Amino acid sequence: MKQLSKDELQLLTDQLRQFIIEAASHNPGHLGANLGVVELTVALHYVFNTPDDKIVWDVGHQAYAHKILTGRRDLFPTNRKYGGLSGFPSPEESEYDAFGVGHSSTSISAGLGIATASKLKNEERQVIVVIGDGSLTGGMAFEAMNHAGAAKANMLVILNDNNMAIDPNVGALKEYLLDITTSGTYNRLKKKVWDVMHRWTRSRKVIQRIEHGIKSVLLKQGNLFEAMGFRYFGPIDGHNLSYLTNVLQDLKQIQGPKLLHVVTVKGKGYEFAEKDQTRWHAPGIFNMETGEQLHTATGKPQPSSFQEVFGKTLMELASMNSRIVGVTPAMSTGCMMTFLMQRYPERFFDVGIAEQHAITFSAGLAISGMIPFCNIYSTFLQRGYDQVIHDVALQKLPVVLCIDRAGLVGEDGATHHGAYDLAYLRMVPNMIVAAPMTEADLRHLMYTAQNANHGPFSIRYPKGYGLNTGQDAPFRILPVGKGHIVRKGTDIGIISIGTAGLNVIEACRQLEEDGIQAAHYDMLFLKPVDEELLHLACNRHRKLIIVEDGAITGGLGSAVLEFADRHGYRANIELLGIPDRFIAHGNIGELQRECGYDAEGITLKAKSMMQ
Amino acid sequence: MKQLSKDELQLLTDQLRQFIIEAASHNPGHLGANLGVVELTVALHYVFNTPDDKIVWDVGHQAYAHKILTGRRDLFPTNRKYGGLSGFPSPEESEYDAFGVGHSSTSISAGLGIATASKLKNEERQVIVVIGDGSLTGGMAFEAMNHAGAAKANMLVILNDNNMAIDPNVGALKEYLLDITTSGTYNRLKKKVWDVMHRWTRSRKVIQRIEHGIKSVLLKQGNLFEAMGFRYFGPIDGHNLSYLTNVLQDLKQIQGPKLLHVVTVKGKGYEFAEKDQTRWHAPGIFNMETGEQLHTATGKPQPSSFQEVFGKTLMELASMNSRIVGVTPAMSTGCMMTFLMQRYPERFFDVGIAEQHAITFSAGLAISGMIPFCNIYSTFLQRGYDQVIHDVALQKLPVVLCIDRAGLVGEDGATHHGAYDLAYLRMVPNMIVAAPMTEADLRHLMYTAQNANHGPFSIRYPKGYGLNTGQDAPFRILPVGKGHIVRKGTDIGIISIGTAGLNVIEACRQLEEDGIQAAHYDMLFLKPVDEELLHLACNRHRKLIIVEDGAITGGLGSAVLEFADRHGYRANIELLGIPDRFIAHGNIGELQRECGYDAEGITLKAKSMMQ
Repeated sequence: MKQLSKDELQLLTDQLRQFIIEAASHNPGHLGANLGVVELTVALHYVFNTPDDKIVWDVGHQAYAHKILTGRRDLFPTNRKYGGLSGFPSPEESEYDAFGVGHSSTSISAGLGIATASKLKNEERQVIVVIGDGSLTGGMAFEAMNHAGAAKANMLVILNDNNMAIDPNVGALKEYLLDITTSGTYNRLKKKVWDVMHRWTRSRKVIQRIEHGIKSVLLKQGNLFEAMGFRYFGPIDGHNLSYLTNVLQDLKQIQGPKLLHVVTVKGKGYEFAEKDQTRWHAPGIFNMETGEQLHTATGKPQPSSFQEVFGKTLMELASMNSRIVGVTPAMSTGCMMTFLMQRYPERFFDVGIAEQHAITFSAGLAISGMIPFCNIYSTFLQRGYDQVIHDVALQKLPVVLCIDRAGLVGEDGATHHGAYDLAYLRMVPNMIVAAPMTEADLRHLMYTAQNANHGPFSIRYPKGYGLNTGQDAPFRILPVGKGHIVRKGTDIGIISIGTAGLNVIEACRQLEEDGIQAAHYDMLFLKPVDEELLHLACNRHRKLIIVEDGAITGGLGSAVLEFADRHGYRANIELLGIPDRFIAHGNIGELQRECGYDAEGITLKAKSMMQ
Repeated sequence: MKQLSKDELQLLTDQLRQFIIEAASHNPGHLGANLGVVELTVALHYVFNTPDDKIVWDVGHQAYAHKILTGRRDLFPTNRKYGGLSGFPSPEESEYDAFGVGHSSTSISAGLGIATASKLKNEERQVIVVIGDGSLTGGMAFEAMNHAGAAKANMLVILNDNNMAIDPNVGALKEYLLDITTSGTYNRLKKKVWDVMHRWTRSRKVIQRIEHGIKSVLLKQGNLFEAMGFRYFGPIDGHNLSYLTNVLQDLKQIQGPKLLHVVTVKGKGYEFAEKDQTRWHAPGIFNMETGEQLHTATGKPQPSSFQEVFGKTLMELASMNSRIVGVTPAMSTGCMMTFLMQRYPERFFDVGIAEQHAITFSAGLAISGMIPFCNIYSTFLQRGYDQVIHDVALQKLPVVLCIDRAGLVGEDGATHHGAYDLAYLRMVPNMIVAAPMTEADLRHLMYTAQNANHGPFSIRYPKGYGLNTGQDAPFRILPVGKGHIVRKGTDIGIISIGTAGLNVIEACRQLEEDGIQAAHYDMLFLKPVDEELLHLACNRHRKLIIVEDGAITGGLGSAVLEFADRHGYRANIELLGIPDRFIAHGNIGELQRECGYDAEGITLKAKSMMQ
């Protein structure tokens, strides 16, 4: 690649883009972000000496071109599939992946660690971090810049500014960046500078012009990064390959912390994706020619998801209760808070990729009499754990935590599974922890949570579909801490929480075919745990299986064992759920099978206990 | 107070300061920060209409004057004592405490929530947030500013800039703030502006002068906050009461997000505290006249603390192994990483109040071949939980997490207890979780952690003193996941981890006096758990007590129950530790007694099981 001419390099870029579009059209993945960084990726690998030089991709769902260029082209059709390539960079997969990523805003910290180690070991090495403007709203990015700027670390932060998270980016910083790229002063200079950009001049002067030219008149704006101790360069066009390579060559020579502001277009080069960037963030499969998104392989319409039930129910509740507001850290489309946003924009808050702030902001709303429904994906709630304990639970504030993408999430893999929420919330005093098995119960739980001052109330549910019934069930108040008997049976008892119960229902059916009568108890609440129901189950059964779509360690299984110990029950209790290791990617069915709590796994476990 | 003349107000301020010094001299508390904000506190309560207007104190250990002024003067001698006033603001304690605090950097988020709720409810209300320059390095403060600036929230953020966290503040932001307050341009203007300040002019002109006067020439610097959508005012002298009140009066009239930069001196008005600000952050008791710090009520020197053992051992290991580095989020003195800092400054990293970054920065170091010892207080590690899972454990990186202030911490109370670490780390795959009972074992664990590539290795220990032996024990490699028998006995088995074992030792002594022979097993490792030792204990005893200085839910007790269930043991197992509620403040002995796992509580439990 280093031997390619400029024209050949441009050709490579075009081919990469086509390859990515084609691959994504029949194997779902993150399309928009990847199309936006094709030129940047080619330029980085052309200019820098990877893998000795280290590139850290923030979040990492934009690293497809990087993967394809670093020996994984033939494997790319397995992207995000069970046993195949990960959708994110992973050092286990390739030495070109300098650091494992998946969650937002980690890259500057990791890059600074790598740069610092190189310095201590006297190794000459360039460290490049690519971070989006959305990721920059995550607080740890600022923590890292504060450290890096003062430490004078030799690293290059590339701000990939496409003005988007998954949804349009929000916040003062976004407005600030937009101000830089669209201000009058900037536009007056733009033509002149763009002229320079389009020339293929290999000289230090290029970089000096952007630093002393654009930046000096934009000092006011550029200075946010300068204040953090970084030299600021840009903004430059992230789709001009030759110019990008020139600038990067120049920056290589400059020591210390520096930030290059690159303006890109999410979905670049694929018209449909450029026009509706949120929908094309991760479009699923689609028809390349027409841009039609095909929701399933068969093209059949899908039933209502838990997300849709959440979104519509929240809007419905908000129309009945004016104290209700919605808070999301940059996931309004993903969690479908868009319904609330459209109907009651003044009661909807997208706070940016900022889970910590989302929780404490919700706590501030709650202490002032509002009832915030704060929707956070399970894996990202780990970011706000301290705030859940310290700001919400300790003050017993009525924040309703709606935890989306709970349990194994499928293709996003190890970084994104919502494996730990049940266990890490169970230990938090004052916290109610609930998980619906059905769409109707999700509605009832949300209704119950806002109805009385219960204090902190968490409701966790998975991505996707349940039984596809009850999406419009009339609201009902559920008694907090009460589960129910789904099915009676005398041979064995199976206790579940959440949608893992759907696997149990199927397992009970299979067991019945083999003449085994299993009872099924749906706890609905992990905390407070339904002791009455557990007494009943422990009294009726000498054999019990506990099933949850979460880490076995510390979860429902532990709760049942603690209960049984407290009351002296001596049942044979088997725990099913996510075992004590990280689970990779694949579809949810494949992963649950691997963990042994799909219907088949539950059936087998029950049979083995009957012997 | 609102009726006081300016002179009387000044007199009140002086009296408050004396009252605080006098009270702290015999009842330990946070001295320096409180002395620094006496004038600011008086000015805030004079100008604003509390409790209708809301003041949110970041961290809150600087709220003594606030508490004394709001009806808690007579109770102040009970500050931080069992059953007495909390050392931090708490809405449960007073309606003047707008939001419960303790951890850093939450105030802007909470204040924004309060301001937003007021707006939605059409309530006229001023919201004032007081945040230190140290707290501003915490990422969630930036997350909140990013949101507040764009939302145009009506709130006043007062940046209390004393250039310190507990230790001197660090990072680019600190240098930036210092630059504002000491730059040439600023100093040229300073005299002129200070003149204005010292006049008692009640007019909008005052504020206009600082905005248009100082700020315009400092636009370059002031702009960091302007970039975040805040109007920036300052810097002004935080000890000039009359000027402060004037400025605050003016700011009351200005809508939208605004930041007032106030320069204060930590320890102001008490010479000793001004001179050595770190030592006087929380000095313990002291002689008011001589400034002599008296470490105990008796004035006797203390033995080596776990902190001293950690600090010296780390330095010793670093001298033997050049791959070792130390990382602390602004707690170098508290955790005693100061030994390393002095000996190997280039291998010591104080990253500011930035736990998230501390963890991922450590992960970056580790992936590059270093062995970072990252020391974080247990309660603050909650801030870095996602980073522990996602950046360290998932990549199996050899980060040594040294978790200080584990278990009940005493006088700092509910916000600061290290109650959950054992439970929330146990569920993390790849993570080794250890807790020494003795100083010698702390040394051995640290030696073991750096000796081989174990991957993530966490070591938790409490504040204070153990058996006061073994501080210089020759290093020994401990087999990972192996505990040991402390004491044999046939009547009952007691299994403990960490320094809770010291209570068990005492309990066994008491039990023996009553003719009960208790066996004592020290697990040392929570994960991997020593199955051999547990088999032995479960085989020998039908009655077992599990003791830990941490939340019962999900901790060692749960681990033993899971083990017993897995292997079909049917022992009577009782779990002792921190129950499922928040524990307030008091000394550690009092709190452990309340929870029932002091020596007396263990003894009683054992006796009741023997009946």
